[in-house]
Amino acid sequence: MSFDPRALLRQMFDAAIEAAQPSHCIPPHLPKTPKGRLIVLGAGKASAAMARAVEDHWSGEMSGLVVTRYGYAVPCERIEIVEASHPVPDAAGLAAAKRIRDIAVAAGPGDTVLCLISGGGSSLLALPAEGITLEDKQAVNRALLKSGATISEMNCVRRHLSDIKGGRLAALAYPAKVVTLLISDVPGDVEADIASGPTVADVTTCADALAIVTRYGIDLPAAVRDTLESGRGETVKPADPRIAGVETHLIATPQMALEAAAAVAREAGMPVHILGDSIEGEAGDVGTVLAGIVKQVAKRGQPFKAPCVLLSGGETTVTARGHGRGGRNVEFLLSFGVTLDGLADIWALAGDTDGVDGIEETAGAILTPDTLARASAAGIKPRQALADNDGHGFFGALGDAVVTGPTLTNVNDFRAVIIGRPDTK
Amino acid sequence: MSFDPRALLRQMFDAAIEAAQPSHCIPPHLPKTPKGRLIVLGAGKASAAMARAVEDHWSGEMSGLVVTRYGYAVPCERIEIVEASHPVPDAAGLAAAKRIRDIAVAAGPGDTVLCLISGGGSSLLALPAEGITLEDKQAVNRALLKSGATISEMNCVRRHLSDIKGGRLAALAYPAKVVTLLISDVPGDVEADIASGPTVADVTTCADALAIVTRYGIDLPAAVRDTLESGRGETVKPADPRIAGVETHLIATPQMALEAAAAVAREAGMPVHILGDSIEGEAGDVGTVLAGIVKQVAKRGQPFKAPCVLLSGGETTVTARGHGRGGRNVEFLLSFGVTLDGLADIWALAGDTDGVDGIEETAGAILTPDTLARASAAGIKPRQALADNDGHGFFGALGDAVVTGPTLTNVNDFRAVIIGRPDTK
Repeated sequence: MSFDPRALLRQMFDAAIEAAQPSHCIPPHLPKTPKGRLIVLGAGKASAAMARAVEDHWSGEMSGLVVTRYGYAVPCERIEIVEASHPVPDAAGLAAAKRIRDIAVAAGPGDTVLCLISGGGSSLLALPAEGITLEDKQAVNRALLKSGATISEMNCVRRHLSDIKGGRLAALAYPAKVVTLLISDVPGDVEADIASGPTVADVTTCADALAIVTRYGIDLPAAVRDTLESGRGETVKPADPRIAGVETHLIATPQMALEAAAAVAREAGMPVHILGDSIEGEAGDVGTVLAGIVKQVAKRGQPFKAPCVLLSGGETTVTARGHGRGGRNVEFLLSFGVTLDGLADIWALAGDTDGVDGIEETAGAILTPDTLARASAAGIKPRQALADNDGHGFFGALGDAVVTGPTLTNVNDFRAVIIGRPDTK
Repeated sequence: MSFDPRALLRQMFDAAIEAAQPSHCIPPHLPKTPKGRLIVLGAGKASAAMARAVEDHWSGEMSGLVVTRYGYAVPCERIEIVEASHPVPDAAGLAAAKRIRDIAVAAGPGDTVLCLISGGGSSLLALPAEGITLEDKQAVNRALLKSGATISEMNCVRRHLSDIKGGRLAALAYPAKVVTLLISDVPGDVEADIASGPTVADVTTCADALAIVTRYGIDLPAAVRDTLESGRGETVKPADPRIAGVETHLIATPQMALEAAAAVAREAGMPVHILGDSIEGEAGDVGTVLAGIVKQVAKRGQPFKAPCVLLSGGETTVTARGHGRGGRNVEFLLSFGVTLDGLADIWALAGDTDGVDGIEETAGAILTPDTLARASAAGIKPRQALADNDGHGFFGALGDAVVTGPTLTNVNDFRAVIIGRPDTK
C-alpha cells in the first residue's frame, strides 16, 4: 500500500478532535441515576454540545440551563441553551449566571447537579460578588492584564470577586450531589483554572488576592477592596464539607487528543513521540524550534530515529505585525516550513481543535516537502507571507487549508509532523 | 555519592568547550609534512588560538599569517597574528586579506597551505573584488540585511563580490596542496557558509546573485552590477581542478561539543538526549518551548523518561526591548525558569561556548529548582528582569553566573537541562 502522508495527517487530526467531542467523551462519565432530579448546569464554548450529548444518552427525567457563546448553541430539548458574549461578558451572560445560581440553590438532597464546564466558561458565567458591578470587575481585570501578573495570580483575584467561581457553585448546590465534567483547554489541565473552577475547591484566600493587587500596585474600586478586606469574597476551601463530595472528571484534555492521534499513527506503522501537551510561546518561534528538532531527527537520528511522528499541543500566541489573514496554527506552520526550507520527507499539519484558527472558516493547514517549491512556482513568497502574518492566505492559495467547520469543542492547538516514510515490507 | 547537579552542569559545559578548543581538536588533523614549505593562513575569532595549536604540535619549518578579532590574539612565534575589526571590516582586515592573498599566490607545488577558518572570518577576511570599494560592498550588505533575503541568499551575493571567498583562496594557492581546518558556528555546518568559504567550491553563480538582488529590489552600485554582469565575480566551481584536491576537515562543531557533554552525563549515570545542534528562534520563546517539553518529561515521562539530560545547541536571537544587561543564553534561561515556575528537580545551564554571552565577563548562568524562590526572597522579580532583558543582572545577583573567560573558540550556544535525580543504587 502506498504511503499517503496527507491522509495520515488528516486522520490524526480528526482522531484528536473526535477524542474531544462531547458525543464521544460525555457518555462514559454520566452520573448514576439520582433518587431525585438530574439538573444540568454548564458554561463554556463546548457546553451546548455537551448538553446535547447528555440528552442523547440520558433516558430519564432531567432539566437544566447552560450558557454558551453566541453562535455555539445546538438544539436541545430538555436543557435550556442560552447564548452570551465571550470574551467580554454581557447582560445575557449575567442574567444566565444568576439563573444558574438560583437553580443550584434550589437543588435538594437526592438531586444530582451535573456541571458541564469548558473553556470560555469564566466570562460566560460572570457573576460579580454582591456589591460589585460588572464594570468594577472589568476595571480590575484590565489593570491585572496590564500589570504583568501571572495567569494564576489573575485567576486568584478574579475568583475572590465572584459569587459563583472558586467552588461557590458547588457549595450553593449542597446538599445535592455535584458531578462536574470538564473539557480542558488550559496548560497543565489545572481544574481550578478551567472557567475559574465554579465547582473546584480553592486553596487561595482573600488575603492572597489582596497581596497580589498590592504587589502589582493595582488601584481597587472601593467595593472591590471592601469585598476582599471583609472576607466576603472568600472562596470555598478543600476542607469545606459542602465541596468534599463533588465528583470531577476531566473528560477531554489536550493530552487525550494527542494520544488518540498517536494511536492512529501507530496503527499506520509509525513510531510516535509526544513532545508536550502544553507547548506555549510565539507561534513563529515555536515553528523555528520544532524545525530545529526535526532537522536533528532527519540528519542524525537524534533524539528520535526516523521514520517517526512528532505530536504536540498547547496554545501559542501571535504578536501581529502584518495585515494578512492569520492564525496561531498557520503562523506556526509557515515558520516551520520556512526554517525547514524544503527538507525532504517532512510533512506537517497544524490546526486548532475547535476548527477555528483565527478566522472562522479554517482550522489550519498542511505542509508538504514541496510547499515552498509550489509557492515559488505560483509566485507566492513565504517569507513575505510570514512577515504579513498571512498564513491563511499562503496555505489557502496552495489549496492546503484544513477545513473542519467549528467543532464545538476545544482542547487547544494540534501539531503533527511526519519525518520520513514508514519502512515497507 | 551525593548527586551534585550544579557540578554536573558545569562539567558538561566545560567538556563542550574543551571539545572545541584548538589545542584539543587541531592536533589530530595536522597535514603530512610537505616536500616544500608549510604555510599557515587563517581568519576568524578562533584563528589565533588555532595557529598557536599548530605551532605547539608542528616541529618542522613553517610560516604564515592569520587575522583575528581585536583582543583575540595569542602569542605565536612562527605565524604572524594580525588583529582587525569584527563584525564591520576595517583597513587592518583589508590589508591582512591582501597579504594573505599574496602569500597564497606565492605558494608553489610541493608546498602545503594550511587554512585555519572559524566564525567571524568573513568580515575579518574582507577583500572586495577588483573595482569594488569596501563602501560599495557594505552598502549592498546593508540593503541585503533589510531586504528579507535568507542568510544563504545573502551569502551567495557576498561570495560573488569578493576576491578571496567562494573558493578563490584555494584557487590562488594552486598548485600548492590546500588543507582547510574549520571550526563551525553555522547551523547545519555548511562549509561554504563558514567565513564565506574561502577554500570551498561554490555551486552558485553570478547569475544567481543577480537574480537574488533583482528579486529583493536591491539597487546596486555601478561597479557591483558590473562585477556580477560581466562574470568577473564568478566563484570557483566544484569541477575546477584548482579546488578538486582541497582537503577539508570540520574539526569542531556544535554537535561534537554536545556529544562531549553527553559523554560526561552518561558517565554520571544519566541518559542523554540531544534535541538539536542548531536550534534557532527568539531566545525567550526557545526557553518557553523547551520548558513545555521538560514539563511533559517530568509529568508524563514523554517523550523521554526521567531522569535524563536534554542537550541542545545553535544560536538564538534576542529582540531587545529593555535596558538590562542581557545575552542570548541568560535570556533563554530566565524565560525557561519563569515558564517552569519552580518545578522540582530541574536544573539547567545555558552558556555561550565562546565564553561571552553578550557581555564580556560572563558565559551564561545556572538555573536551579529554587532560583525563583531565592529571587523572591531577595526581592528580585524574574518577570520584570525578563521584560528588561536583564538576564545577567538577574542571575548575577543570585550568584549563579557562569564565568569561563573568553575561550578563544566558538561552537555557538550550549544548553543543558537535568530532569530528575539519577537512580542511586
